[in-house]
Amino acid sequence: MSSGESGESKTYVHGYGEREAQRLMDQAESVRDLIHHDTEFPTDSRILEVACGVGAQTVAMAQQLSACRLVSFDKIPQSVGLAAERIRAAGLQRVHLLAADLFEAPFKPESFDVLFINYLLEHLPDPLAALTSLKALLRPGGDLLVVEGDHGSCYFHPDTPEAIRAWKCLIEIQAGFGCDSEIGRRLHPLLQSAGFEDVRVSPRMVYADESHPHVQHQFVLQTIVPMVEGVRAEALAKGLMSPIEWEKGVADLRETGLSSRGTFCYTFFKASARKLG
Amino acid sequence: MSSGESGESKTYVHGYGEREAQRLMDQAESVRDLIHHDTEFPTDSRILEVACGVGAQTVAMAQQLSACRLVSFDKIPQSVGLAAERIRAAGLQRVHLLAADLFEAPFKPESFDVLFINYLLEHLPDPLAALTSLKALLRPGGDLLVVEGDHGSCYFHPDTPEAIRAWKCLIEIQAGFGCDSEIGRRLHPLLQSAGFEDVRVSPRMVYADESHPHVQHQFVLQTIVPMVEGVRAEALAKGLMSPIEWEKGVADLRETGLSSRGTFCYTFFKASARKLG
Repeated sequence: MSSGESGESKTYVHGYGEREAQRLMDQAESVRDLIHHDTEFPTDSRILEVACGVGAQTVAMAQQLSACRLVSFDKIPQSVGLAAERIRAAGLQRVHLLAADLFEAPFKPESFDVLFINYLLEHLPDPLAALTSLKALLRPGGDLLVVEGDHGSCYFHPDTPEAIRAWKCLIEIQAGFGCDSEIGRRLHPLLQSAGFEDVRVSPRMVYADESHPHVQHQFVLQTIVPMVEGVRAEALAKGLMSPIEWEKGVADLRETGLSSRGTFCYTFFKASARKLG
Repeated sequence: MSSGESGESKTYVHGYGEREAQRLMDQAESVRDLIHHDTEFPTDSRILEVACGVGAQTVAMAQQLSACRLVSFDKIPQSVGLAAERIRAAGLQRVHLLAADLFEAPFKPESFDVLFINYLLEHLPDPLAALTSLKALLRPGGDLLVVEGDHGSCYFHPDTPEAIRAWKCLIEIQAGFGCDSEIGRRLHPLLQSAGFEDVRVSPRMVYADESHPHVQHQFVLQTIVPMVEGVRAEALAKGLMSPIEWEKGVADLRETGLSSRGTFCYTFFKASARKLG
């Protein structure tokens, strides 16, 4: 759904602003239990977190997997700096952070027990090449863990034409970068194509209605709406919507997380696989 | 997703053929655990199953809730006849079947502990009126259980333009009857509008890939594809697709449940609520 890493940093749909960094933290928090309540690895596992961005997942993973050794990297040094600040503030040990490009990562082949890839593949023009490159860093028999969104899994009520169009701007702009924001649904065949074994995909659906005010607030209003608002300039510049239509679309999206009759659905896909031992 | 009951039987999108009856049984079986593993009511509860159709759910509900008393009705006498045959074949007692219209159901007010509504509201032009009418049959403090699909929750891979269009024909034809096949996402506000209390909605997502061959076979190939094939005549008559496009669309949909790279997603919505005691 987002990441600090992309094929080219200028093609990263969400940008690198301060508001976006906060949005990523809110997103990580709002869906952490849903996605990671069953994430666990043996003591002392060497875990490589790819494209850690501003560390939105890193702190939580380091806390949850405190018996493991976490190495996290991102190609954007400023993001790594922010991640390092968070790690320090949380008082976490056993986390090593560095700036590196995933295609030239400075690690020994087969030196990790676990690869953790989070909201990255949707931002890459060639996700298969990235998986193949990263796979070389995993020891035989090691585990792959991938979490991605799927923007085509999103639907809501009321679904006004403007809200639907505003949402589709996000998909279209990401597609314009050669990236697939609907990658969640094809994780299974993708990981198989990359030569991984025992591929298992588990969809994790976020559902919000009035009886889940926390999800409405943290996921719909603080994660989804700002993410859409983040592509306003591109959407208008490309003429995908008029300014008036855009404002109505975003206001209507906000309604789905605000009003008593609003509902919102989005599905993340969590995939696990193994490198042939 | 289907039902033997509708506002007008001639507007029921899926028809009443033998193949459709089999499809409904396959559908019921393929998603039963997903939807009903947590369905339970106190011993001797008087349950009214509304619009039981050919009894696709009735047998399973009667088996699962064998300590309860089940009354099931449908407006189509032939469907009730088929349901009765299945109940007899399964050797089930405590199930009473009858033909009746839901707006003129021959039951005393407040005579049931539980209302069970299954794939019905999506086929009604005025689901709120139906809920209001049925609510009168429920005792104060009684439970409502509703299961509906949401055709807008469906996405798959590979998602060819023809496959997407064939799927959308189903939504459009149902909309042409004044019915909302995307009702799942709005069950929460709908039940609240009907005056029910403690409304809780739980989405139940069906996900199929190569590692779930049983789901691919029973849900995608035996439930979804035949459902789409069932609107072929209307889709072509309305000129929504050409015959060649249609055949490719259906073949492509079948691929999502057949090939090693196919995946398929669909979400049912299970809602529970209470009538103010």
